[in-house]
Amino acid sequence: MRVLGIDPGLTRCGVGVVEGDIGRQVRLVGVGVVRTDAALDVANRLAEVEAGLESWFDEYRPDVVAVERVFAQQNLNTVIGTAQASGVAALVGARRGLPVAFHTPSEVKAAVTGSGRADKAQVGAMVVRILKLASAPRPADAADALALAICHLWRGGSSNRYAAAVARAKGIA
Amino acid sequence: MRVLGIDPGLTRCGVGVVEGDIGRQVRLVGVGVVRTDAALDVANRLAEVEAGLESWFDEYRPDVVAVERVFAQQNLNTVIGTAQASGVAALVGARRGLPVAFHTPSEVKAAVTGSGRADKAQVGAMVVRILKLASAPRPADAADALALAICHLWRGGSSNRYAAAVARAKGIA
Repeated sequence: MRVLGIDPGLTRCGVGVVEGDIGRQVRLVGVGVVRTDAALDVANRLAEVEAGLESWFDEYRPDVVAVERVFAQQNLNTVIGTAQASGVAALVGARRGLPVAFHTPSEVKAAVTGSGRADKAQVGAMVVRILKLASAPRPADAADALALAICHLWRGGSSNRYAAAVARAKGIA
Repeated sequence: MRVLGIDPGLTRCGVGVVEGDIGRQVRLVGVGVVRTDAALDVANRLAEVEAGLESWFDEYRPDVVAVERVFAQQNLNTVIGTAQASGVAALVGARRGLPVAFHTPSEVKAAVTGSGRADKAQVGAMVVRILKLASAPRPADAADALALAICHLWRGGSSNRYAAAVARAKGIA
């Protein structure tokens, strides 16, 4: 089961790909960010988000997509742009017929650190330990995307098994 | 100058197309809604929004797109879905190389009624008068999309003239 995690943003989307199965070691497959040109208007930045994510999907062929859930109460200056980017991220996954799950930041923190209130440094440190990395991926959005993908793999349980069965039935896994 | 106005929503996007130039009568070209299946998850509903809007763009070939601007302070239960749908709407326009403008609800109300605090009935009545219609388009989202397109045409001024010049230079107007 290969999960592509996306930490959405209009300026920068973190992207992390992990592979694993229940009871197996989780493995890092790819990590990075999709950046957009700050000189462009919102619509063209969303087109850059789409094009950038499409390359990740093309290269890594995930079985499932996990996107960070955006809340209306988050930073009022950026929440609309973040929600727009999250919509484009979900769209790219759905258009490919992939299951798209949303997880809240506290679900992600709880899954990887055991506490829903862990800070960024704790999440980064746990991502390093879980994936046996030499150091935390930079920028933080990239580490967050990996944490999101790990969270999906671990929380998935029956829904992961269902997605895996669907993938097998389609002859793609 | 042909303007496609989009009142975004996850359940229903209002779509209205008008044509006009500065100092000329504004003409209704098309109006309706893109609906999504409430039984689908968010990602698949966004894919339906994309597919539905693509048909409108294919059929009506607008020169410019006007999308209602979403604010973080709007209805907390629906604002994230509305923002996601607005992101998909802007994306579809940008991908076609069209200028995409955002207007706030009060800009739209002020443009068509003279008051930024007009209610839905007043906006609908003015849309009927401006476009010389027999009755207000239903549902309200459709009338709102027309008001948005009219607002863009009237407020556009120099930016409309610029978009028209670009369209002419590309040999498409």
